[in-house]
Amino acid sequence: MTNHRYVYFFGNGRADGTREMKALLGGKGANLAEMTNIGVPVPPGFTMTCELCAIYLKQQTYPQELRDEVAINLQRLEEVSGKAFGDAENPLLVSVRSGGAVSMPGMMETILNLVLNDITVEGLARNSGNARFAFDSYRRFLQMYGDVVLNVPIQKFEHLLEAKRLTQGVINDSDLNEKSLRTLVEEYKLLVRHAVGREFPMDPVEQLWGATEAVWRSWMLKKAVDYRRVNGIPDDIGTAVNVVAMVFGNMGDDSGTGVAFTRDPSTGERAFYGEFLVNAQGEDVVAGIRTPLRIERMSELLPDAYAELMQTQLALETHFRDMQDLEFTVERGKLYLLQTRNGKRTAAAALRIARDMVDEGLITTHEAVMRIPAHQLDQLLHPVIDSGQRAPVICKGLPASPGAASGIAVFDADTAEQRANRGDSVILVRDETTPEDFHGMVVARAVLTSRGGMTSHAAVVCRGMGKCAVVGVQNMSVDAEARYFRVGDTTVREGEWITVDGATGNVYLGELQTVPSEVMRVINGTARPDQAPTYLAFRQVLEWADDSRRLRVRANADTPKDARIARAFGAEGIGLCRTEHMFFEGDRINAVREMILAHDEMGRRRALAKLLPMQRSDFEAIFEAMNGFPVNIRLLDPPLHEFLPHGGEETKMLARQLGVSREELLRVVDALRETNPMLGHRGARLLVTYPEITEMQSRAIFEAAVRAKRRGIVVKPEIMVPLIMSAKELSHQRAIIEDVARQVLGAMGEPIDYQIGTMIELPRAALTASAIAEVAEYFSFGTNDLTQTTLGLSRDDAGKFLPLYVEYGMLPDDPFQVLDQEGVGKLIRIAMESGRKTRPGMKAGICGEHGGDPKSIAFVHRTGLDYVSCSPFRVPIARLAAGQAALDV
Amino acid sequence: MTNHRYVYFFGNGRADGTREMKALLGGKGANLAEMTNIGVPVPPGFTMTCELCAIYLKQQTYPQELRDEVAINLQRLEEVSGKAFGDAENPLLVSVRSGGAVSMPGMMETILNLVLNDITVEGLARNSGNARFAFDSYRRFLQMYGDVVLNVPIQKFEHLLEAKRLTQGVINDSDLNEKSLRTLVEEYKLLVRHAVGREFPMDPVEQLWGATEAVWRSWMLKKAVDYRRVNGIPDDIGTAVNVVAMVFGNMGDDSGTGVAFTRDPSTGERAFYGEFLVNAQGEDVVAGIRTPLRIERMSELLPDAYAELMQTQLALETHFRDMQDLEFTVERGKLYLLQTRNGKRTAAAALRIARDMVDEGLITTHEAVMRIPAHQLDQLLHPVIDSGQRAPVICKGLPASPGAASGIAVFDADTAEQRANRGDSVILVRDETTPEDFHGMVVARAVLTSRGGMTSHAAVVCRGMGKCAVVGVQNMSVDAEARYFRVGDTTVREGEWITVDGATGNVYLGELQTVPSEVMRVINGTARPDQAPTYLAFRQVLEWADDSRRLRVRANADTPKDARIARAFGAEGIGLCRTEHMFFEGDRINAVREMILAHDEMGRRRALAKLLPMQRSDFEAIFEAMNGFPVNIRLLDPPLHEFLPHGGEETKMLARQLGVSREELLRVVDALRETNPMLGHRGARLLVTYPEITEMQSRAIFEAAVRAKRRGIVVKPEIMVPLIMSAKELSHQRAIIEDVARQVLGAMGEPIDYQIGTMIELPRAALTASAIAEVAEYFSFGTNDLTQTTLGLSRDDAGKFLPLYVEYGMLPDDPFQVLDQEGVGKLIRIAMESGRKTRPGMKAGICGEHGGDPKSIAFVHRTGLDYVSCSPFRVPIARLAAGQAALDV
Repeated sequence: MTNHRYVYFFGNGRADGTREMKALLGGKGANLAEMTNIGVPVPPGFTMTCELCAIYLKQQTYPQELRDEVAINLQRLEEVSGKAFGDAENPLLVSVRSGGAVSMPGMMETILNLVLNDITVEGLARNSGNARFAFDSYRRFLQMYGDVVLNVPIQKFEHLLEAKRLTQGVINDSDLNEKSLRTLVEEYKLLVRHAVGREFPMDPVEQLWGATEAVWRSWMLKKAVDYRRVNGIPDDIGTAVNVVAMVFGNMGDDSGTGVAFTRDPSTGERAFYGEFLVNAQGEDVVAGIRTPLRIERMSELLPDAYAELMQTQLALETHFRDMQDLEFTVERGKLYLLQTRNGKRTAAAALRIARDMVDEGLITTHEAVMRIPAHQLDQLLHPVIDSGQRAPVICKGLPASPGAASGIAVFDADTAEQRANRGDSVILVRDETTPEDFHGMVVARAVLTSRGGMTSHAAVVCRGMGKCAVVGVQNMSVDAEARYFRVGDTTVREGEWITVDGATGNVYLGELQTVPSEVMRVINGTARPDQAPTYLAFRQVLEWADDSRRLRVRANADTPKDARIARAFGAEGIGLCRTEHMFFEGDRINAVREMILAHDEMGRRRALAKLLPMQRSDFEAIFEAMNGFPVNIRLLDPPLHEFLPHGGEETKMLARQLGVSREELLRVVDALRETNPMLGHRGARLLVTYPEITEMQSRAIFEAAVRAKRRGIVVKPEIMVPLIMSAKELSHQRAIIEDVARQVLGAMGEPIDYQIGTMIELPRAALTASAIAEVAEYFSFGTNDLTQTTLGLSRDDAGKFLPLYVEYGMLPDDPFQVLDQEGVGKLIRIAMESGRKTRPGMKAGICGEHGGDPKSIAFVHRTGLDYVSCSPFRVPIARLAAGQAALDV
Repeated sequence: MTNHRYVYFFGNGRADGTREMKALLGGKGANLAEMTNIGVPVPPGFTMTCELCAIYLKQQTYPQELRDEVAINLQRLEEVSGKAFGDAENPLLVSVRSGGAVSMPGMMETILNLVLNDITVEGLARNSGNARFAFDSYRRFLQMYGDVVLNVPIQKFEHLLEAKRLTQGVINDSDLNEKSLRTLVEEYKLLVRHAVGREFPMDPVEQLWGATEAVWRSWMLKKAVDYRRVNGIPDDIGTAVNVVAMVFGNMGDDSGTGVAFTRDPSTGERAFYGEFLVNAQGEDVVAGIRTPLRIERMSELLPDAYAELMQTQLALETHFRDMQDLEFTVERGKLYLLQTRNGKRTAAAALRIARDMVDEGLITTHEAVMRIPAHQLDQLLHPVIDSGQRAPVICKGLPASPGAASGIAVFDADTAEQRANRGDSVILVRDETTPEDFHGMVVARAVLTSRGGMTSHAAVVCRGMGKCAVVGVQNMSVDAEARYFRVGDTTVREGEWITVDGATGNVYLGELQTVPSEVMRVINGTARPDQAPTYLAFRQVLEWADDSRRLRVRANADTPKDARIARAFGAEGIGLCRTEHMFFEGDRINAVREMILAHDEMGRRRALAKLLPMQRSDFEAIFEAMNGFPVNIRLLDPPLHEFLPHGGEETKMLARQLGVSREELLRVVDALRETNPMLGHRGARLLVTYPEITEMQSRAIFEAAVRAKRRGIVVKPEIMVPLIMSAKELSHQRAIIEDVARQVLGAMGEPIDYQIGTMIELPRAALTASAIAEVAEYFSFGTNDLTQTTLGLSRDDAGKFLPLYVEYGMLPDDPFQVLDQEGVGKLIRIAMESGRKTRPGMKAGICGEHGGDPKSIAFVHRTGLDYVSCSPFRVPIARLAAGQAALDV
């Protein structure tokens, strides 16, 4: 280990490191080295590698040879800067900053103004010509170091500071004079002595090592650990420590400091964008005590530095080939860059910058595709709260489905429908939603629930419809009978206005204005593409992604309307058409309920005959919307009790409607109740016990296909049997479907190419895929249910413990959002391998929630499936993610 | 196909077939051939192979060459018998009988007395010297052939017969004289002509083929198909057809017929055992019109034939090396064997016969082990209804747990306890049971439920306790509030006596005497082994099985009492000790409920502290009972709501007891309610959220182990975490357990060897077994839950469709009774392979219901696991099945 290098120097136009060394030097350190190398003015300094952090945290000490290396580099720093470490006359001051390979803004410690002590503070006072500034810096340093390194509670420093303000009769710290600050410095030192039991360290080297170790330790601060967990950053990569010569933007009116972006981070427009302050330090810009100026003003106030900054920012963007986020300081007219990094940006900006940089020849189309965080495309599709309004946030839930909407609160689906029919905007508020609420959800502007997670019924259905939803609001109690909800001290009654922001999870009291996004205005036909710059970039980048991707992208769409939206977003077919969703529309539910309550097959057939024409016309319209593309229709899946009312009043009404006694109806409802409905009488199990349902649905599909075909539409029906657990079960259903096909297509004299496939959504189906593939022409992995069964995890009940599992790292992600590759993914691989052994090249796709998740899409690509299917509003995400998966080799 | 042989002849001491040809000739045909070959007197005949049945059913016709083959064999038969087919003087009569490779008693057609027609009947009358007999035979033949071959409804024949009795003024058919029978024959022929539209066939060859095709068709009779389904007999093997020369036991007082067993089929005693009738045909013995005589009487009545029969039966048993079930006929003093086959027998007889035959040098100990149907050992352990009593059967349910018991009906657990404390024998009658009923189940003699299947709570718990249970009685309604149950017209109120037979599923009104079985009397110490012949054979055969088996057999036992019973049955440790079952005893449930209702960790710890000493003393007693054997203890598994009351009255009482408001309690109960509790907050998920439970339970285990060890007991604790889905989850729990171990064992200064393992009961656990094996020292496959998740099948809800799936062959067996090898078994193989790759030689076992099922045990053996664990009363079954698995190579 003796020849191992731990420290990398930069300064005077040459650096030991380069931008390629991010893993070793952290993002900040690598870019400081790179800037130095390409001639950008950067204060000199050195970087201790990330590796040291891991060593220190493991061994509670650092390698002995590091002390020598640091000593050598301090010496180089003194040479380059012409100042001396701890010197009384011309003291070299440094900052000690963390900087990992992945940015963790604000999560870790930084200590400025080392080495200040009783001697160097006088030198600083002299050199700056401002003793007040020097002692204020010293006071701040004592406080920062005392808190971070010595663990003296920050409040104790604050108390002394406040006492000083009181005795001096001033309001702001900045009004304390030099003398007060000098006294305060002495009081701070006394405080430290009492708290720690020894003097505040005056020794420069001790200060440096104290600060360095504190930075390392801060890697394990709870907030940092949490941040890494949430953002999927590994725990063992550690942070680098950057020791950089201090430069001061507060040395007078020829000094200043600022932050800037090389392009507009919210729109992506090509315009230098930033803020700065004259005679100030970085923290003043952040703290907001003085209002920063727009960067353009710098051309008047610090013209030379501005000119150099403009040149530099252009050079940096060209060099780094991406939009840069800069920090700079001007010390007595001289510009120093303190940091550069790729700037964070909105989805709109990301698209526009990527597209423009391709036009400018800076990057390739492949790079453009790879640069857009696919999941952010969501932002572009949903209504937004018109900016500049203010209203109280009354609570916050999970941002289950993006967009924003205002409306009056209503507490049941029927009321939602009545009020919506009267022209009211309504927001449906429930403890949780069930399929019975569907008609209310359709008319509502948004859905708000107190229970459920990101994959609850409300969340899934709303995302499917592209409707805003906030779910799982803790401490919110909904009283649907009394028609109000409470949260904290606030009570919202039926008819009161609220606004829900599905992008943030915020719920506001009152009506806030929302507007459709630019992209949606084009999709709706209310805006012209050529006047929609974001839309144009969106379309362009997606086309580039399309050029690269191998995966097809289909949509989960249950109605003709959804199918049309899906097409507008570029869906290449329907991957999942859930026929049961059609059952809830209008008075269809009555026929469904009549079927459930029938005493025998004849009765069921009578009721099914009523549903046939309705399903047929829906299918015909869906075939029309998907002209030329495949439409994969799943036969009835949910347990029958989902179609029956559970409430008292509704039961009474239904009994009257169907002409049965209330007791009889309750008996049926009771008999259908299940201990674990997820694992109960549903899917193929219903179709096996009531094959007449399969018959009716197949008939509707084939008749619709023939009618559409006769109208010149190219139909590609696929019929899919849900919840299969054995090949023979599928054979049973296949025989019925084929029988109906022969009858219908024979009678109508119109051949139709169709395929029969199956959902793979039970582990046993995946494990016996080889036999199932003999009967199925394609597989559609129902990853929602496959996740529930593989992990033994009910998505309706997991809310109590699943967050803990993700937090503790017991599961890498929420498996309902990101496909669980180790478990569910392994089953998918097993099924694909054995299925394709039986039926070479067999078509396969996934159609769960995961079909719209970029990480999951990458897995699907690698595993060799043919397509993903997701809700219409996630089609753009899937197109982009599929392109990225293909390019990420 | 021309050289293919379809017909096998036997007669005159030589046969084309042998006993080895069962698959080709069926059991009956192969044994007729064998008997012929070894010189046993058998009427001559020939067998058409099973293959023909399959061909006929598929093609609706038979191979043309068969007609020639049959013609040749008929000729041989005429030669050997000295009679001629269809001859007027000396007619050859034959029977046409089915006979498959596997016996299906009474399921298929047989037609006797071919060829009778208007001509041969006269010959028969002359030769028998009994015209009445000849015409009665003819009448019967017309009826049988008309029904079976010509499909004339049997009732029509019966009507004519009844009319004849009325006009003749007689009561029994046997009182009809020759003349009446002659007229009846003419009437029957007329009936056939009108019904079929043509004459009854008089042609001998047409009769033969008609009968043969009818036998083939009868393979597809509903009752035959059902029988095959229930008994797992393949559909495609078909039946052979045996054409055998008729011999008549009703030719006078020197004739007779009978059935006999070479040993007593109910006790296994070595004594020739049978019944016979003089001057009678086989069907008379079966019909029960005349009371048959004990076989010993034959020595007086037909002394020569008896002597030959005694010789023959000995020869047959020696030749077939198994107890034989014989049919014989004596025609005019000459003995004919019509059939021999291995005799059906009770479990007691099977054991005794096998043991005796080893002693006699007839078979090897391995053969003895292989001969006992392992699942039948159950019969030997449970109380039996004392024979010779009669009472009305009021209903029949599933025989969920064997044994028989009488008691007064009670309708809730508390009443059960009260009445039992008063000394009453009680039978707990419920719609279904829950863990709350446990204390009532413990004191009840039997449990009777209207719902649930073979793996419902009542069934599983009762089998575990070796307590009689009948579950899922259709059409039984239980009104627990009003305290009665109804079934049909019968109402049984609280306090009325009923008797439940868990071996048959019968429920009787009134009290029937029951007695413990012989084996149980020895186990209980109320009988001496040397006076218990069945017990001795049982013990001997199990010891032979033990000599062969590789698998260890453990028991699922939750209490010290269960542990002691398990040891008495030869369990080699405990494979599953469900700690939560201890939570329901006495007032422990209060502490459990207090824990659940606690507002914070402190409150939970207070309640857990009360449970600690109780669990500790239980564990200590279990360690004592299992001295020297491993005890595998599972930490808390079920969801918390199982410990809370759901009823109104009980909730009120509990609220008072715990000093909380009823609303508060209801709120907690409500908050714990889950949509799919099977996939909810339970197992490791509870232990992760409430690690203090793990701490308390581990502490109780280690403290108990130390105390037991200090008393000289050899303790081998294994601690198992349930419902693990990821390795890190297990690490979390392992750290807690190890921490407690260090504290307890350190403080008490007593080292204890212990192991930490996990249940593999979720597909994800099996799929990630490689990582889990890094943390787990052993795997215990929880095949109940693994079946539920792998098949997506709730065992509480599957009753509505699962029987259909088994009936349709969509699943090979009920997966909750026989391990699903294709699905669940595949996961077990994956887990074993990858787990042992990580941890070579790692110990593994299964502990679900399947641990006591012979087919599943064979799979476990083949898959290389180390042990099975089952309820104490199934330990003998498992020992035997494990021995058989090892021998079945």
